[in-house]
Amino acid sequence: MFKHQREIRIEWGDCDPADIVFYPRYFAFFDASTGELFNAMGYSLSRIREQAHCVGFPMVDTRSQFYKASKYGDLVNIESEFTEIGRASFCVQHRLFNRGDLAVECSEKRVWACVNEEGKLQAQAIPDDVRNLMLS
Amino acid sequence: MFKHQREIRIEWGDCDPADIVFYPRYFAFFDASTGELFNAMGYSLSRIREQAHCVGFPMVDTRSQFYKASKYGDLVNIESEFTEIGRASFCVQHRLFNRGDLAVECSEKRVWACVNEEGKLQAQAIPDDVRNLMLS
Amino acid sequence: MFKHQREIRIEWGDCDPADIVFYPRYFAFFDASTGELFNAMGYSLSRIREQAHCVGFPMVDTRSQFYKASKYGDLVNIESEFTEIGRASFCVQHRLFNRGDLAVECSEKRVWACVNEEGKLQAQAIPDDVRNLMLS
Amino acid sequence: MFKHQREIRIEWGDCDPADIVFYPRYFAFFDASTGELFNAMGYSLSRIREQAHCVGFPMVDTRSQFYKASKYGDLVNIESEFTEIGRASFCVQHRLFNRGDLAVECSEKRVWACVNEEGKLQAQAIPDDVRNLMLS
Repeated sequence: MFKHQREIRIEWGDCDPADIVFYPRYFAFFDASTGELFNAMGYSLSRIREQAHCVGFPMVDTRSQFYKASKYGDLVNIESEFTEIGRASFCVQHRLFNRGDLAVECSEKRVWACVNEEGKLQAQAIPDDVRNLMLS
Repeated sequence: MFKHQREIRIEWGDCDPADIVFYPRYFAFFDASTGELFNAMGYSLSRIREQAHCVGFPMVDTRSQFYKASKYGDLVNIESEFTEIGRASFCVQHRLFNRGDLAVECSEKRVWACVNEEGKLQAQAIPDDVRNLMLS
Repeated sequence: MFKHQREIRIEWGDCDPADIVFYPRYFAFFDASTGELFNAMGYSLSRIREQAHCVGFPMVDTRSQFYKASKYGDLVNIESEFTEIGRASFCVQHRLFNRGDLAVECSEKRVWACVNEEGKLQAQAIPDDVRNLMLS
Repeated sequence: MFKHQREIRIEWGDCDPADIVFYPRYFAFFDASTGELFNAMGYSLSRIREQAHCVGFPMVDTRSQFYKASKYGDLVNIESEFTEIGRASFCVQHRLFNRGDLAVECSEKRVWACVNEEGKLQAQAIPDDVRNLMLS
């Protein structure tokens, strides 16, 4: 399935008094990585949102395992790929490497969500052109 | 086992353009809730850190499930409790309620970590007095 | 003019490897304090936003001076008050105290903003009822 | 004086329900830009911190003016340069451009800080080799 990787540098503000990345920051990294996965696919979240009433892909379930701490200034590599495409939901797997070692692993399940007539978020079938790109 | 609850108000800066809480913020809420759980137990992280070379309790594995979105201004309730106490690790469960509905659930596995002579993080046995409080 | 104060506890995730609050977090505290100032006035940002096309009060100019560092676990007090009310803009002053000492001072100038017919943010006159509350 | 520029993409998590960057995030961008300014100079904060008891360069005074909002997905350019070098403090100016327009301007005054024998932060003279690089 479609995959993408990007490199980021750990910033001072990502780290806590134990001198390592404050773990909620990893979820912000991974959220941005899922955004970049769509960008790389040629289907940015901005483009998705410009389509009638579509808000994006809210998270329904995510799990992260932390194997090795990263520190300020570290250059890390995040590999992201789709792992499952359902009718109205999809899964993404992220693996963050620091100097070649797998440091953090994260799985996400998200829904393709729109706003219904009552103004509430509602899952909706992933459009075929998006699905085909995800599977490519 | 020991449990604690606290109430927080969702801030403007916690929310994203879909007008709901940006999910990495929930992990920051839960991290602070685990901190408050220790405070309520009479054993603050500050106190733990003042003990020789102890850095705290880094996360090794966390999973969250999101059932219902929360919005700016919502007053939510977070119930946190220890669910498992190992030799050098422990588990916490958080449940976030919004107007009585379970909105987010999160489980955490953390290690009791110290800095060894080489300056590296290392798991260490949870002291007995802390363990007894956790089990109370 | 209208004023309000609130107390917050410095969280682990607010602090950086120098073991003090990462200064951008103070701006998030002050933004929430301005929100609380409106809440205390009985005119929440949620209520403002429900009014046709009003988005809130974006920042145009803010300055902070840092006199004393705060640390994880510190209980700090933030005093906020309106200091100037213009036609379509207003100023707020925040003072953060830690154990009685003035630790951070911040001034804000914000505009009362709505979305115009082209979908762009635009300053607009502050409604009279809101202005009267601010001046009270 | 020494200057540097870098490009960043606005992330989903940087934005608020008004669909624009939540302004405290700009301060996180600028803090990282000051870090990159030192990196580009060949004198990273990590290197500074490895020197005995040096913690970095805490902020003492910062002011930002916001001229134009940026949105999710925007590619922005941040130009940073030293503007003043004192004995134990220095000033940095950041200018953030979005599609060629000056969108945000920020000035910073920071101190060169070390930890004294009592464990407190204390300003200290900027070492000559660092000063010479800043002035280059």
